[in-house]
Amino acid sequence: MDISSFNPPRRILMGPGPSDISPQVLQAQSRPIIGHLDPLFVNMMDEIKALLQYAFQTQNAHTFAVSAPGSAGMETCFVNLVEPGDKVVVCINGVFGQRMLENVERCGGVPVVVEDSWGEAVSIEKVSQTLEQHPDAKILAFVHAETSTGVASDAQALCALAKQHNCLTIVDAVTSLGGIPVKVDEWGIDAIYSGSQKCLSCVPGLSPVSFSQAAVSKLTSRNSKVQSWFLDQSLVMGYWSGEQKRSYHHTAPVTALYALHESLLALYKEGLEQSWQRHADMHSQLADGLTELGLDLMVDQSCRLPQLNLVAIPNGVDEAAIRAKLLNNYNLEIGAGLGQFAGKAWRIGLMGYAARKENVSLCLAALAEVLGES
Amino acid sequence: MDISSFNPPRRILMGPGPSDISPQVLQAQSRPIIGHLDPLFVNMMDEIKALLQYAFQTQNAHTFAVSAPGSAGMETCFVNLVEPGDKVVVCINGVFGQRMLENVERCGGVPVVVEDSWGEAVSIEKVSQTLEQHPDAKILAFVHAETSTGVASDAQALCALAKQHNCLTIVDAVTSLGGIPVKVDEWGIDAIYSGSQKCLSCVPGLSPVSFSQAAVSKLTSRNSKVQSWFLDQSLVMGYWSGEQKRSYHHTAPVTALYALHESLLALYKEGLEQSWQRHADMHSQLADGLTELGLDLMVDQSCRLPQLNLVAIPNGVDEAAIRAKLLNNYNLEIGAGLGQFAGKAWRIGLMGYAARKENVSLCLAALAEVLGES
Repeated sequence: MDISSFNPPRRILMGPGPSDISPQVLQAQSRPIIGHLDPLFVNMMDEIKALLQYAFQTQNAHTFAVSAPGSAGMETCFVNLVEPGDKVVVCINGVFGQRMLENVERCGGVPVVVEDSWGEAVSIEKVSQTLEQHPDAKILAFVHAETSTGVASDAQALCALAKQHNCLTIVDAVTSLGGIPVKVDEWGIDAIYSGSQKCLSCVPGLSPVSFSQAAVSKLTSRNSKVQSWFLDQSLVMGYWSGEQKRSYHHTAPVTALYALHESLLALYKEGLEQSWQRHADMHSQLADGLTELGLDLMVDQSCRLPQLNLVAIPNGVDEAAIRAKLLNNYNLEIGAGLGQFAGKAWRIGLMGYAARKENVSLCLAALAEVLGES
Repeated sequence: MDISSFNPPRRILMGPGPSDISPQVLQAQSRPIIGHLDPLFVNMMDEIKALLQYAFQTQNAHTFAVSAPGSAGMETCFVNLVEPGDKVVVCINGVFGQRMLENVERCGGVPVVVEDSWGEAVSIEKVSQTLEQHPDAKILAFVHAETSTGVASDAQALCALAKQHNCLTIVDAVTSLGGIPVKVDEWGIDAIYSGSQKCLSCVPGLSPVSFSQAAVSKLTSRNSKVQSWFLDQSLVMGYWSGEQKRSYHHTAPVTALYALHESLLALYKEGLEQSWQRHADMHSQLADGLTELGLDLMVDQSCRLPQLNLVAIPNGVDEAAIRAKLLNNYNLEIGAGLGQFAGKAWRIGLMGYAARKENVSLCLAALAEVLGES
């Protein structure tokens, strides 16, 4: 075989994720490996937990990172909290709501779907009606920030509704955490998962999660075993909990956790409010520039995510050719449309370390040049 | 919060994993991130597949790395190949055989257990009798190299038996791959999983797997959906397959895959036979030295793993204090006993990059010193 070491170019990542990673985080990840039960490592895990509690704005003891990507974080919430026969109201307004539905079905849950158009927020009114109609529903599940459409839904209002109807909530915050406000305790979120590789700007492969006391109670009073051994939180708690001797569950992704520690520390040092403001400011600059170029942002301003911008592809433009030119000539990655928006939209991300002025300027300049040529 | 960047010391890892990582692999991991659908990245994934086919000694098209640790690789094999009601013969001679049983149960399979003493190999005779008694068994599952005991079982003979009885095989090669012969095609293994962080000396967090054509057929002819969305190989294939356009499934752990590429390349350049021989040679030196120190290797030479050595704790020795001294005074990690061997044995690993002469010498010298003091 004629294979040599892989030496990637320096790209600028402005797609839907993975996002750019700061040199500090990449450097942290390359530090020497130590054991996953080493006292120094266990101490670092406690720091990660504290930093995640800050990022999620929660006091939840059950707050840590699943050793796998965001999709596994999603599955962690569903397999632990949905028992066969449980009725779950699932809101779908994009790809990741659909994936939630898949999860409910594969757990043996009974899904009740609330559907909204792609590109629109979850309708509070429809959810309210549905919860009225299904007083036996046990869980409300929705996506806070739909990565497939660039839409934010009103997590606070949805959680308040769920509480009124005695439902637990499962919230997808993969794209929202760090980029827009996420307030787990204040909003009363019961189970939330995110990804390391969006607005946290860590390496991909980890999924921060947090469970409220009510979620932990539901888990510990289950009648049936969690169908996934790997994701069973009643077992994983023994490794991540500070209250007892750490018991071996699986070998933690040590170096990825170094990176998570460093990226969460950067977020803490910047401050959550400052990070939200930076994402909002960069979005404004990008939106203004795109408008000047005659490009349309497809999501209404009332529910638009600053960190992920859905841009309509102009008539007659070969969208894949434009993306290839940006990648090959400018080392700039923007995202293709997903699901219903495949071929109809680009997704331009401004996530974490990538939400910087020089990136906005480059993206606008490069788009102007390649669209001018096409 | 008073938290600063994490700067681990340089440890020498001679426990049951994670193992030491070469500077080249750590450096590869810290290269700039590119997108998980970038053509350059997709090409690198094809190289990883070819390198894994070499490591597993297989032509299986369905060969790649699960984006999570070895425990998730185990679960990948069980959730995809075991349907509710399927009878599965599970061999237990340590912690990881027990974990296989957990997996069978959580998949709704009907387990038939073949039990052997911890510290002994799986009995070919017992498995043969069990397969005779259960002609409706569909799968035989066993651990090739038990990480909890340091025992190798005869995978070739077990797979031959399974074939005679029309059973598929699921084989745990987490600790064996790269350290002792693993020959997927020659032995007729149907589903195999390993870990990145043992004899491959890559970062922890990935699980190489390979499925034979018969395993893929079983998967594609299932009556029920795979209970895990994240691990459903019928979906994951769309991302890792070279034959079709790569479809998004989840965000791959990009930088960890850089590291896997580099570590597999190192194994390919050294050569599998040379790697097996190196592990055997280092084991010989370690075993001789331990014997000179008056320490007993607990596993019979006929089934002893060179890469993981179970050492009896001498009477009256505080085993945890010894490990703490090795760690604190020599930066040397050896492993505690697990399960039945907790408090009774140490586990000294010689895995991948850690299987080097200087490590053997240090380990013996340090053990002599701390045992002399105790």
